Amino acid sequence: MVEQLNPRERILMGPGPSTVPSRVRNALAAPTLGHLDPQYIAYMDETCQLIRDAYQTENPLTFPVSGTGMAGMETAVVNLIEPGDEAIVCINGVFGGRMKDNMQRAGATVHTVEIPWGKSFTTEQLTAAVQEHPNAKVLGIVQAETSTGALQDLSGLGKLTHDAGMLLLVDAVTSLGGHELKVDEWGIDAIYSGTQKCLSCPPGLSPVSFSARAIEKMDARQTPVQSWYLDVSMLKNYYTGGGGRAYHHTAPINMVYALREALAMVLEEGLEARIERHRHLHLQLREGLEKLGLCYVPENSLCTLNCVAFPDNVDDAAVRGKLLNDYDIEIGGGLGEFAGKAWRIGLMGSTATERNVTTLLAALKQCM
Amino acid sequence: MVEQLNPRERILMGPGPSTVPSRVRNALAAPTLGHLDPQYIAYMDETCQLIRDAYQTENPLTFPVSGTGMAGMETAVVNLIEPGDEAIVCINGVFGGRMKDNMQRAGATVHTVEIPWGKSFTTEQLTAAVQEHPNAKVLGIVQAETSTGALQDLSGLGKLTHDAGMLLLVDAVTSLGGHELKVDEWGIDAIYSGTQKCLSCPPGLSPVSFSARAIEKMDARQTPVQSWYLDVSMLKNYYTGGGGRAYHHTAPINMVYALREALAMVLEEGLEARIERHRHLHLQLREGLEKLGLCYVPENSLCTLNCVAFPDNVDDAAVRGKLLNDYDIEIGGGLGEFAGKAWRIGLMGSTATERNVTTLLAALKQCM
Repeated sequence: MVEQLNPRERILMGPGPSTVPSRVRNALAAPTLGHLDPQYIAYMDETCQLIRDAYQTENPLTFPVSGTGMAGMETAVVNLIEPGDEAIVCINGVFGGRMKDNMQRAGATVHTVEIPWGKSFTTEQLTAAVQEHPNAKVLGIVQAETSTGALQDLSGLGKLTHDAGMLLLVDAVTSLGGHELKVDEWGIDAIYSGTQKCLSCPPGLSPVSFSARAIEKMDARQTPVQSWYLDVSMLKNYYTGGGGRAYHHTAPINMVYALREALAMVLEEGLEARIERHRHLHLQLREGLEKLGLCYVPENSLCTLNCVAFPDNVDDAAVRGKLLNDYDIEIGGGLGEFAGKAWRIGLMGSTATERNVTTLLAALKQCM
Repeated sequence: MVEQLNPRERILMGPGPSTVPSRVRNALAAPTLGHLDPQYIAYMDETCQLIRDAYQTENPLTFPVSGTGMAGMETAVVNLIEPGDEAIVCINGVFGGRMKDNMQRAGATVHTVEIPWGKSFTTEQLTAAVQEHPNAKVLGIVQAETSTGALQDLSGLGKLTHDAGMLLLVDAVTSLGGHELKVDEWGIDAIYSGTQKCLSCPPGLSPVSFSARAIEKMDARQTPVQSWYLDVSMLKNYYTGGGGRAYHHTAPINMVYALREALAMVLEEGLEARIERHRHLHLQLREGLEKLGLCYVPENSLCTLNCVAFPDNVDDAAVRGKLLNDYDIEIGGGLGEFAGKAWRIGLMGSTATERNVTTLLAALKQCM
């Protein structure tokens, strides 16, 4: 009644998903176990430990949320925020804006620090924001703005927020496994990411981690978390073993297999080597893109996502269509302010290879 | 650094997941496409149509929520309910209780109709509830109570609720694809299910559907939906094509492949034939279980889940452990009130075969 499933083997160089290696897809297809089966619990515990290793944290409360990166954002927000709380959100692209929206839905009064899209925040701007809003409970910021390709330096931000009695919330969707990210050393209190970016696992899960400081605030809540599905006070019984692995919802078993395998690949390569691979291939790609007359949008570009403005005479849809149809290469269009003006070219996880950089540059030259 | 993934090939006869056929697992492992790739959009549209076919509905707003069945419950609740709304929830087990909890978190005043666990609601009880709470906006009820194995007859309930100006919300997690379920004919306004029960797809998605009547109420909301991730007013742009497939979150591509394949298998078999298979194998299992001295908990048992009380002299954990370790068969323990008193034996989707019924009965006899 439906045709045989036969997806084309694209090179995924958009803003995510990245190309998923067959090793991870094979893990995805392994026999399904029950979510309370001791063998599955052991795989899940290993997966949580692998997430800790990737985040460079010892946080016990570290697990994959059963939804995509945006569910991770919502998990962090609804568990940390109570109605009436104040929060600071740093906005320099789509995802900062979404964090604000999530916080407002959770009842927060949100103070925004806004700078032009493509820019990164300076220490002075962040310090001023913290001083201006001393009652904020949380400061939220995006390390890797997927909409603009801007990388945010997070150094010093842990101390700045903690000295002011605030929690530091970080969006690491497009950085985990591709950029330096040291949750404990940097004093990050709540963080979320996605599986389909630099981890090269299919989309569907969101690795999150919460510090002891964050847990203390969550434990002191006066009101229930507005989301049942994302309520960490219940989820932690299942993921960290308190309450005898009490059933909350049926974990997405096969997706957890895939994440475990993807994280194993990240750590086998080594975080430093992997970050260096992303960096040097980014430089190679950058050189080629600039030779083609494409101009980087952000001042401080991510290595994992290259947001480049194209000349006025270029037909956006035609070029991307030709790349997809003739070359089986996906690149991303611009988002928000940059729709129709820029492309977003991902170089994440398994997609980040010499061959893909060379192929894309040659194909793009033909298509432009 | 981690051992080779090697999950045992269990026969999954618990309350879910059920055994996932290799055809579905192979689909899961197909190459990942981008979530805006026209080929993926076509697969997704087909998947939504297959969900409509399985639900027997023409509802345009029918799609897989990017989370498990409990995310489907929350999607239905947070989109239909606004703070201050009244709702009626019918509780005869764990999942009715969870629906109440979800509604309260969404700000509803919940009127419950409670009957003992294992019982099903009578028309008189439901009629009285509707008459008693004429201002309720929604009546929520569970068709297949996974915690007790009770089947709820839904006939007449559409008319009853609509005549009173209410919406009918149904939990079909353990019934879709295993029991008769006619969304349009029965006048159901909002429904959710899970993939890992009678569809025999891995857990991770929740097929939902909303009637025109439900959409009208959602469009008339005065307040934003409290969940960003589950906000149907945004999701519908991506799933039903309004707003040019606007990006909301990255769809769980590979899980959608698997669901498409699982639904294709359901519809190739035919809904009626599939329901009849569940029915006659349930009767066969029932005869065998009763011969072993096990006693059905619900008056009106599901065919898909058999909740049976075991005699006092039976060691719950020992029997289930022996089944799992010696026979690679998973059955479920009791939940809530029935913990330590009953087993829940699933006969769902691909698990529902003559061979599995025969094997379980023989193995259980050895273990008890």
